[in-house]
Amino acid sequence: MNVPEEYRILFLQGGASTQFSMVPLNLMTKSKKADYIDSGSWSSKAAKEAARYGEVNILASSKEDTYRYIPKVSADSFTKDADYFHITTNNTIYGTRFTPQSIPKTGDVPLVADMSSNILSEVYDIRDFSLIYAGAQKNMGPAGVTAVIIKDSLIGNAQDCTPIMLNYKTHADANSLYNTPPCFSIYMCMKVFRWLNKNGGIQAMEARNKEKAALLYDFLDESELFKGTAVAEDRSLMNIPFVTGNADLDAAFIKEAQEKNMVNLKGHRSVGGMRASIYNAMPLEGVKALVEFMKQFETDHK
Amino acid sequence: MNVPEEYRILFLQGGASTQFSMVPLNLMTKSKKADYIDSGSWSSKAAKEAARYGEVNILASSKEDTYRYIPKVSADSFTKDADYFHITTNNTIYGTRFTPQSIPKTGDVPLVADMSSNILSEVYDIRDFSLIYAGAQKNMGPAGVTAVIIKDSLIGNAQDCTPIMLNYKTHADANSLYNTPPCFSIYMCMKVFRWLNKNGGIQAMEARNKEKAALLYDFLDESELFKGTAVAEDRSLMNIPFVTGNADLDAAFIKEAQEKNMVNLKGHRSVGGMRASIYNAMPLEGVKALVEFMKQFETDHK
Repeated sequence: MNVPEEYRILFLQGGASTQFSMVPLNLMTKSKKADYIDSGSWSSKAAKEAARYGEVNILASSKEDTYRYIPKVSADSFTKDADYFHITTNNTIYGTRFTPQSIPKTGDVPLVADMSSNILSEVYDIRDFSLIYAGAQKNMGPAGVTAVIIKDSLIGNAQDCTPIMLNYKTHADANSLYNTPPCFSIYMCMKVFRWLNKNGGIQAMEARNKEKAALLYDFLDESELFKGTAVAEDRSLMNIPFVTGNADLDAAFIKEAQEKNMVNLKGHRSVGGMRASIYNAMPLEGVKALVEFMKQFETDHK
Repeated sequence: MNVPEEYRILFLQGGASTQFSMVPLNLMTKSKKADYIDSGSWSSKAAKEAARYGEVNILASSKEDTYRYIPKVSADSFTKDADYFHITTNNTIYGTRFTPQSIPKTGDVPLVADMSSNILSEVYDIRDFSLIYAGAQKNMGPAGVTAVIIKDSLIGNAQDCTPIMLNYKTHADANSLYNTPPCFSIYMCMKVFRWLNKNGGIQAMEARNKEKAALLYDFLDESELFKGTAVAEDRSLMNIPFVTGNADLDAAFIKEAQEKNMVNLKGHRSVGGMRASIYNAMPLEGVKALVEFMKQFETDHK
């Protein structure tokens, strides 16, 4: 990964949940205020943790509507002197995302993004962000390491109670080698980055991911049996939840799919139904096979 | 691993350095005092981090003598109302250890041990300890996960500013599954535990490790060229530092050893000389080969 000169990349131990604390501990240092958009359970957890270290303003939430869309906020409502503004770019459970065009323009307030579940899946402009964090286990490598892309200017002002391993400065000063890092996970990320570059980089992933997602969304929009649950303009390229509207049929679908070796199609327990996760590693053929099976299932259950 | 009923085992993301903060954040909750024995650079780092969250008393240190022994402390000097007492059981750089017999008896004060570099290497009585932590990467598995054996009674009283992922309660309540854990590293630990059980468990490791260490120590005690640097009664079973007393000879030894595929024999830069790390995974044959080579080297350089 290449980043502009004013940023650096750290590979840190642990998952994105550790960043829920690291972000406020390192960034809530002036006004001790931060804006959050609540677009799913992980952004909600991030906001809840940040509220332990400063004043969190949740500008908008789509919780009441089972997070089926990305809540829209007008720039007027932004906290002018916030230390940062936090979004979750992709919401795995609900299948929504901020598109590269819908990223909030926060001006002088640093924009922080949890990009765990769609980093490297399509082209975002890094200059829209001051800090991006992403647990490895969706599009990069094994769980246990988190990539952080951070502007140098945000490093070095952590709150007093910040544990040494949760201070970005510790890792920046030691070039991510303060202690023994999760070497194997980082090694695997390197292999995935090389695979990604060999296959055309993020641009090529984006084209492929859009083709994969369109195949499934187009079918969902035509189907009389299956319906996508996310609002169209906020649809994720990575996670596509859908339902039949009938719990027995949903269960039959998941069971039959499993018999055809299409696994992990059960939706998260908080929303029910089905969910197809089609990360970078899922080939177009996998989505084609799923859509063919869905067509057959629909015919069989007319 | 089996532990008595009043303990539980957690597998947590990150390394032992994270525990340097977690221990005081979770345990410094009453008097906010803790006793530390400074037996090496890692115990020193642990004490320094703890001092950010409460009052740390360093009861004794062997720093002035390049940590070549475990400092002895009398029970009279213990802080009576300390929230805990911290030791590092094995000091990798200096080749010293607390033997099972030299573990301080701290009475009602919980004894906390960083056992990163000698867990599973010999039999300690778990009832001497209230909390043991150990990064995986010496005797358990790949870096990126830390095993914590903790008495249930120590969980649930963390300081207010404790980040959610650094609170033992978060992981105890979620059975180490609050977020996606470092699955691959944990899986590899399981494989190592099974290998260990199949090979006679910790008792058998202890017998083998003592045989390995004795082979090398006996030679060092007889050699006219090589000298062990650690004080005899505190010698480690895992890390054996030694010197010739001549930097050029040390360098020649390390180079020739490397040509014979005996690698990583260079001592830590803070002590110089050589160091043989003979963790559980090192077979007796490896130590035999090293001693044979040392004998030959000594003959060649008489």
